[in-house]
Amino acid sequence: MNFTEKLLKASQKNRSLLCVGLDPDSRFIPDTDVLEFLLQIVEATKDLVCAYKPNLAFFEVLGSRGFTILEKTLQHIPEDIPVIADAKRGDIGNTARKYAEALFEVFNFDAATVNPYLGYDSLEPFINYAQKGIFILCSTSNVGAADFQQLRYHEPLSKKTRSLFELVAIKAKEWNTYNNIGLVVGATQPKTLKVVRELCPEMPLLIPGIGAQKGDLASAVRYGVDANKEKAIISSSRQILYSARGKDFASAARREALKIREQINQVLANL
Amino acid sequence: MNFTEKLLKASQKNRSLLCVGLDPDSRFIPDTDVLEFLLQIVEATKDLVCAYKPNLAFFEVLGSRGFTILEKTLQHIPEDIPVIADAKRGDIGNTARKYAEALFEVFNFDAATVNPYLGYDSLEPFINYAQKGIFILCSTSNVGAADFQQLRYHEPLSKKTRSLFELVAIKAKEWNTYNNIGLVVGATQPKTLKVVRELCPEMPLLIPGIGAQKGDLASAVRYGVDANKEKAIISSSRQILYSARGKDFASAARREALKIREQINQVLANL
Repeated sequence: MNFTEKLLKASQKNRSLLCVGLDPDSRFIPDTDVLEFLLQIVEATKDLVCAYKPNLAFFEVLGSRGFTILEKTLQHIPEDIPVIADAKRGDIGNTARKYAEALFEVFNFDAATVNPYLGYDSLEPFINYAQKGIFILCSTSNVGAADFQQLRYHEPLSKKTRSLFELVAIKAKEWNTYNNIGLVVGATQPKTLKVVRELCPEMPLLIPGIGAQKGDLASAVRYGVDANKEKAIISSSRQILYSARGKDFASAARREALKIREQINQVLANL
Repeated sequence: MNFTEKLLKASQKNRSLLCVGLDPDSRFIPDTDVLEFLLQIVEATKDLVCAYKPNLAFFEVLGSRGFTILEKTLQHIPEDIPVIADAKRGDIGNTARKYAEALFEVFNFDAATVNPYLGYDSLEPFINYAQKGIFILCSTSNVGAADFQQLRYHEPLSKKTRSLFELVAIKAKEWNTYNNIGLVVGATQPKTLKVVRELCPEMPLLIPGIGAQKGDLASAVRYGVDANKEKAIISSSRQILYSARGKDFASAARREALKIREQINQVLANL
């Protein structure tokens, strides 16, 4: 079973487009061990999500201990829920192969986010894992997205211009030989999301930026899904993980995840 | 002492622009423990380099154990030699802060490489460590550099066009409030290196791509240095680490490092 099949299966089983970002931030975690915190979050939400997405920065900041916590957390996520490494890796061929091996073989993630700045040969080692999902950063949810992603280029063979993020989407489609490529598109810019979904009608889109980053959930769902109302992965981290900061964090996280899942399903019902 | 001062001091003391990339690849390491291999490489080259540059992919691929090895390796590098984390990180503000904290406070690197695709606010948490060095990927040494970095843009206020990599260099200069930004420019494209050095006459340039990647050493030095014949960091990994694959790997690495340092100094003498 490849990544997209696993995603659709989990999504259908849990009636959910919600992905919970596992970003343990010591400033917000209640008086609990980090691993214990993550295991309780997973336990409380595993029937409500289509995927989990640990961001590796939050583990790296704990030093080598952080990667042990990551390894143990991954062991406790149910087999049938895909896990996306939010790693945003991008390096040259030789090194990219090591990153791909680390994420897909050592940590055994189902998918990973990657950065396109270094071009095709930096992504190829990831793409070559045909069973895994590769989410290429296209248009990110932050203000700085405007600095380069929204610059307009000359198209080589015409007099038209295109934004860099559009070109990334077009290239991603071109490189999608194994049908395992998706794109990361922030929820903070609904118009951009619409453009990308039109360019790539069938790709899974990973959509962060709702919640703490104030992206609009309704348009993230409306513009994010494919023709079957699927393949949009709506990701939320802080809003769910730190909904309550006391001992009741897990039940509060469950309530919040339930709420967001229902909000998403409501939008879908009205499409 | 900030990163650039530390770099110049090490460079002057060791009469060297050579940086050794610490990329332990189990396929090539002789019959030795990875940590032991790295410690011997450091021991054999520490009077010949201006910096060390571990690429984090090679540690991540070893799982949590890899980060323990990285921590121990860092403890054994002499205090006066700067260490650059080749991490190519790039994430949104909240997460970028964690990566910066991980690299600069937890692992205590002197500098790090970062990816510009997500724009200023993704780099700001790194730049705010005024004493650390921030190397922004500008033009990389791989073939895929052509996919996006060499595309030509409209300059907003003129009818001119510029390559993306030039724009990254221009922005880096604009963002360089603390004088701690440098650029990564591959040795495989001498003309590009020349253009970037002209745009940023005073920045440290990290120049990978000689050796296994076949970049020309002489033009890397000639076009890479500043007006004082400094601030070019010529990086080599495989060519030095795996010069011999038997028990004599450390002495072979030393010979190779000596040779490259002398080749560099010869070019400098003729400038």
